[in-house]
Amino acid sequence: MGCLATTHSKVIHKLDIPSFDWPVAPFPRLKYPLEEFTRENAQEEARCLEEVEDSIVKWRQKRKPVAGIIIEPIQAEGGDNHASPDFFRSLRNIARKHGCAFHVDEIQTGGGCTGKFWAHEHWGMDDPADIVSFSKKLLSGGYYQKDELQADKPYRIFNTWMGDPSKNLFLAEVLNVIRRENLLEEVTRSGKALLNGLYELQAQYPGLLSRARGQGTFCAIDLCDTATRDRLLLQARDKGVHLGGCGDVSIRFRPALVFKEYHVHIFLNIFNDILAQNK
Amino acid sequence: MGCLATTHSKVIHKLDIPSFDWPVAPFPRLKYPLEEFTRENAQEEARCLEEVEDSIVKWRQKRKPVAGIIIEPIQAEGGDNHASPDFFRSLRNIARKHGCAFHVDEIQTGGGCTGKFWAHEHWGMDDPADIVSFSKKLLSGGYYQKDELQADKPYRIFNTWMGDPSKNLFLAEVLNVIRRENLLEEVTRSGKALLNGLYELQAQYPGLLSRARGQGTFCAIDLCDTATRDRLLLQARDKGVHLGGCGDVSIRFRPALVFKEYHVHIFLNIFNDILAQNK
Repeated sequence: MGCLATTHSKVIHKLDIPSFDWPVAPFPRLKYPLEEFTRENAQEEARCLEEVEDSIVKWRQKRKPVAGIIIEPIQAEGGDNHASPDFFRSLRNIARKHGCAFHVDEIQTGGGCTGKFWAHEHWGMDDPADIVSFSKKLLSGGYYQKDELQADKPYRIFNTWMGDPSKNLFLAEVLNVIRRENLLEEVTRSGKALLNGLYELQAQYPGLLSRARGQGTFCAIDLCDTATRDRLLLQARDKGVHLGGCGDVSIRFRPALVFKEYHVHIFLNIFNDILAQNK
Repeated sequence: MGCLATTHSKVIHKLDIPSFDWPVAPFPRLKYPLEEFTRENAQEEARCLEEVEDSIVKWRQKRKPVAGIIIEPIQAEGGDNHASPDFFRSLRNIARKHGCAFHVDEIQTGGGCTGKFWAHEHWGMDDPADIVSFSKKLLSGGYYQKDELQADKPYRIFNTWMGDPSKNLFLAEVLNVIRRENLLEEVTRSGKALLNGLYELQAQYPGLLSRARGQGTFCAIDLCDTATRDRLLLQARDKGVHLGGCGDVSIRFRPALVFKEYHVHIFLNIFNDILAQNK
């Protein structure tokens, strides 16, 4: 129920499920490439931070104090929205100032796909997050928390598979492979190739593509409308490329950690063919 | 939240978690051995069935109609309470009569430990359950449902590990071993030896033990009080036997499916020593 209260991407998940009365603050809606729009983006981030702080104050006045802030390093289901390290550090400071736990949701971003093991390592925070939750590439669902957030009694957090040893055996080997094959460097390299390829395609098909963005191989690009996006996803599938959508008009890229530069070029060629068909 | 609304064994799990306003009916509190107290037990079961039907009618009048009945074949956390096949068939009929889905929770009982793969196979139902949920020995959490209960839209029930292939690989091999090594027959054989051993110890230590009961190796016995039960659990652990408690004064037995008759005798010898110490 907590998960469903924090997701906003698909109405279908929330149908008939009661929800908590929690405030939701806007995630910055930035212009890409980020380095070309630093001034506008800084303004947008300042606006969002102000709204976060307003929410906290308003809800405290309503006697429903905000216990914690949950944030994704890249807002994923919501359309692959990025923000600057400065934004996240400021948010962390707001959380501390108001006594809210700062919970970084690394479900999608954790495990190496941004080029670092945790996406929040890109932020250069002085004070670590209070909670980091993970899943997906980590094979199991879990979280780290600061000692002071440890539940005060045993059994308050409990499930049948405590520690899930069989998943942990697999995970240990995944971590070995990441180290042995330098997969974080590989991700950085192939991510750069992918994003540069998307920039080129975007310049070539300005009527179809915009807002190419990414960190590591965690990339996305916007199509002109939802119908075109959905059609392209099917056309890609028919050519053997499994892509997903996120947000209303975005295609998101979530390759495995072993996705190499030559895979990028195979993909870009296929994607180029599909775009040419849809011109 | 659904799970927490249906559990009543440990207050600690429910602390600070909101719950649904659902009616709870009593599980029959039978006398053991069942075959010695058929008349009293039939009366107790009839009383509980009547209360179930009363609840359904009352809640319908409150305009909160009961959508489904959830029942364990052996009420496990609640103290290993058994009921007769006749009780479960009657409950299934009440569910059908009032249009409530009949959900058999085989989380603890499923997978072979009662001597059949599903404990509800012991009931001889004409009309199968509407939903059967499982976990534990099935390595993953899941459920079966009748076609008409299939969610009407995709994504209404969703999680990251859809189908959880790695767990299913393990499960396929577990099922092979169950078949190849005839583990359901083994469980029936070692379960009989265990229950007979508990009957003998109960006759030998009437001040300590009572209400020995079980199906397959899914057995339990009551101690004279909670403190004694808890002390015995620790003493067993110190002798290398891992036992658990359930209910207020019960010890429950949940051996693996490969628990054989000679393991029963090893256990009974150790348990006898501990009981002698506590006489």
